[in-house]
Amino acid sequence: MRQRYQLKQRPQRSRSYDSDDHERGACEWCEYALVITLATVLLIGVSALTIFWVFYYRGGYAWADDTPDKQFNLHPTLMVAGFVTFCGFSVLLYRICRCFRRIYVKLLHAIFHALAFPCIVIGFLAVLDYHNKKGINNFYSLHSWIGFVAMGLFGLQYAVGFFSFLLLLICNKGTAGFRASLVPIHAAFGILTFVLGVAACLTGLTEKAIFALGADRYSGLVDEGIIINAIGVSMVAILGVVMYILSREKFRPAEARERLTRTSVDL
Amino acid sequence: MRQRYQLKQRPQRSRSYDSDDHERGACEWCEYALVITLATVLLIGVSALTIFWVFYYRGGYAWADDTPDKQFNLHPTLMVAGFVTFCGFSVLLYRICRCFRRIYVKLLHAIFHALAFPCIVIGFLAVLDYHNKKGINNFYSLHSWIGFVAMGLFGLQYAVGFFSFLLLLICNKGTAGFRASLVPIHAAFGILTFVLGVAACLTGLTEKAIFALGADRYSGLVDEGIIINAIGVSMVAILGVVMYILSREKFRPAEARERLTRTSVDL
Repeated sequence: MRQRYQLKQRPQRSRSYDSDDHERGACEWCEYALVITLATVLLIGVSALTIFWVFYYRGGYAWADDTPDKQFNLHPTLMVAGFVTFCGFSVLLYRICRCFRRIYVKLLHAIFHALAFPCIVIGFLAVLDYHNKKGINNFYSLHSWIGFVAMGLFGLQYAVGFFSFLLLLICNKGTAGFRASLVPIHAAFGILTFVLGVAACLTGLTEKAIFALGADRYSGLVDEGIIINAIGVSMVAILGVVMYILSREKFRPAEARERLTRTSVDL
Repeated sequence: MRQRYQLKQRPQRSRSYDSDDHERGACEWCEYALVITLATVLLIGVSALTIFWVFYYRGGYAWADDTPDKQFNLHPTLMVAGFVTFCGFSVLLYRICRCFRRIYVKLLHAIFHALAFPCIVIGFLAVLDYHNKKGINNFYSLHSWIGFVAMGLFGLQYAVGFFSFLLLLICNKGTAGFRASLVPIHAAFGILTFVLGVAACLTGLTEKAIFALGADRYSGLVDEGIIINAIGVSMVAILGVVMYILSREKFRPAEARERLTRTSVDL
């Protein structure tokens, strides 16, 4: 096992993601460019569509005692931005920024999550305050339970990721084994957090459509109902594109593929 | 590249999943047994809980013109059984049946999906007929749109899987490259189908809770609301456990790990 491992080693390339581009064919580049562009359009589009929905059908935003409904509008907008747009880009960074040094990708990953963080916190406070102003119970619905789990996982993942993959770099060599063993767990729970965030958004949109439109208008396929459904379907499309991108071994940077290979052989 | 590939080859083991068990430590076995048991309990438990909910709170099952509500009850039960329980087991079979020959695991995978198929079809017909009897529009809600995409993907995956991984075995050697290249795509879209099935169930449960209990009773945390939420949370737990199992390289059968290694090196 050890002998085979040593035979496979290449000269180190200063832990950067360059150099595999010349091995890539035109067809593969087209596929890569197409799906990354599609993902980008969908991730930005879903937030844009939510903002359009709020301004066109729900009266825009506010945070005052006499306009709780406008305050509520911050909740879907910020949660979609935090859990879908920012988290989605953060997940895809490891496939988009293939020519960056790995530490820069890590920092960008942390920054995108840092952008998601206030969105999620303010989005959560907006609905909590709205419920209290309206005298509605908190945490009674399946949507709120899923959202609670998603927020918990997000916080845990952020703390673990920040500590393990950034702070522990102070002792780079001593913690390499620990960090390497944590990568698949962090990645799996990261994708789970993203999926749960999307599930929370989908159940939330369902609730909002029924509460805001009523069963009769919603089942009559009014314009607003179609817009709400379109936001949900965009998220489903995002899930599909993100999972496709993550499943393509060829979209991984070469260095990450080599690491995977070494891990597989050493298991 | 070719040289390294040849160096890594082991004597063929008749394409079976045996023989890596002696390399496994006690701690790893415990973890494996624990998560597989947990997944099994959750996958069976979620269907059992749905049946309990229907019998205890919704009056059981029927298919007659004068009891459309009891006919509707077939919809959640069969969709949870099809999309979550059977599909969940089918996804996990490649980790559970590690000592089986690969062709048997494939056949079991096809059989579990074949069990899910009538559940999904009858579950779909039950709600379609219920809507028509009650004069409710079809396909207006986000839940129905997600469910429609999930059913489409399920049918497509089943057809592609059956044709590519079973029928094409007639010409085993000639199609090996094609089948190998299809595996990650089939796996990614399989997991996506499973996730979308769960998302459809979660949005459906949200709809049902609001329609059946009304916003006031649901927000008052009545027993039935908690049971419905518990079914949803069980599905979230299933997503977590299934993703954890799929992310653990060590839970793959040794032969599959070797195949992954070869693919990674040859890319």
